[in-house]
Amino acid sequence: MGALLQQGEESPFIAVNAQGRSPFVLICEHASNTLPKALGTLGLPEADLTRHIAWDIGAEKVARLLSRLMDAPLLLQRYSRLAYDCNRPPESPDSIPEVSELTAIPGNKKLSAADRLARARDIYRPFHDGVSAVLDKRAAEGQRSLVVSIHSFTPVYKGKPRSVELGILHDRDTTLSSKLIKSFPNIDARLNEPYGPKDGVLHTLNLHGFARGLQHAMIEIRNDLVATERGQDEWAQRLSVPLIQAATK
Amino acid sequence: MGALLQQGEESPFIAVNAQGRSPFVLICEHASNTLPKALGTLGLPEADLTRHIAWDIGAEKVARLLSRLMDAPLLLQRYSRLAYDCNRPPESPDSIPEVSELTAIPGNKKLSAADRLARARDIYRPFHDGVSAVLDKRAAEGQRSLVVSIHSFTPVYKGKPRSVELGILHDRDTTLSSKLIKSFPNIDARLNEPYGPKDGVLHTLNLHGFARGLQHAMIEIRNDLVATERGQDEWAQRLSVPLIQAATK
Repeated sequence: MGALLQQGEESPFIAVNAQGRSPFVLICEHASNTLPKALGTLGLPEADLTRHIAWDIGAEKVARLLSRLMDAPLLLQRYSRLAYDCNRPPESPDSIPEVSELTAIPGNKKLSAADRLARARDIYRPFHDGVSAVLDKRAAEGQRSLVVSIHSFTPVYKGKPRSVELGILHDRDTTLSSKLIKSFPNIDARLNEPYGPKDGVLHTLNLHGFARGLQHAMIEIRNDLVATERGQDEWAQRLSVPLIQAATK
Repeated sequence: MGALLQQGEESPFIAVNAQGRSPFVLICEHASNTLPKALGTLGLPEADLTRHIAWDIGAEKVARLLSRLMDAPLLLQRYSRLAYDCNRPPESPDSIPEVSELTAIPGNKKLSAADRLARARDIYRPFHDGVSAVLDKRAAEGQRSLVVSIHSFTPVYKGKPRSVELGILHDRDTTLSSKLIKSFPNIDARLNEPYGPKDGVLHTLNLHGFARGLQHAMIEIRNDLVATERGQDEWAQRLSVPLIQAATK
């Protein structure tokens, strides 16, 4: 079975500020809309590859600013979720979506077992191995880790507008999310909206947070609020203080 | 930082019957009492290295028989839990125990960050990577997986005898364990005994079962019942039918 990524293509995993001294480790699974060259455009027009279906608009920028403000490691995934959604396990049909929101993805139809395995092996696995290695090293050094993933959501989903501005998502362990939700008095912030554990979106945090006994939370920002540099800067500032406080309380 | 395992030493992970067609994937983290050569005897007399503190007596044998009866892949870890307990994340002090039951482990005292990292990197990580790779492959092939780990416990713990014969352990997802617990009418079988999730023993299953949305359960057999070949055979037979039934119900 051939490799999905060709020589010279970027690794799916990069660590920004890997030595950061913050107790937080930031993760951004949907940072990029890049497709592996071997997948072409997955049969989609270019316009679809800049929409929310391909990546979390603004999330990487907010996460990079937060990483700097908090001196936190930031672990970025470098390929579009249309190639493989790294916040889904290989068992999930959503890991390589045949339809995303209302858009059919021609290049994801009727994949062979070998094609599916190549996507998981060459994108999902190296990304999560990279996350594990950073957390293993911190643990060996006795450095505490809290795991926070940064996402953005589309203001209109399947034709319906969403008014929620900030989602704080959790599955079983609510320690961190219950602190954070109280920290945004002037924002329409809600727990487990617009998604929650039943949508399968807590995969990364269950894997690297819950299973290791590390506090964790998923942050979802409505993407029209972080589409500009000004919005990204505003939201990074807004998130940094409650996060730092939640770790010390 | 040097490698913990020297050339010629066994890999921490081996897959028995990797192509098995059962929906079950069996895991045995505490199969062996072998120590990496570089660790010597960890300062322990040989007699301690054959006790429960070093491995789960009888567990590998039962698991191998079950693997054959059920045509299930069996994923074995090849080193003593005294070197690294693969059912604990690197964050857990129990991952490299300084004291096990009532026995001090001299070779695990005051380890440097580099020593701790070498244990995790060279034992824990390759084992769990091996488990992930088997599950990834099955997922890509559309093969359903239920994850069951096979353990044994000591009949006397810290001086207290235990009457429970069979423990079926679960954390949040009780789907499989609630079926299995009804299947042993003539056995002293109990849920979450003699250990449970608060003891941190559900790590492997939370990592490979819960986080992936796969049904799972941990099986703990009192080790005096599986100390002989006859006992091992009896218990493999006894466990195989309820497991097969639980997957089809």
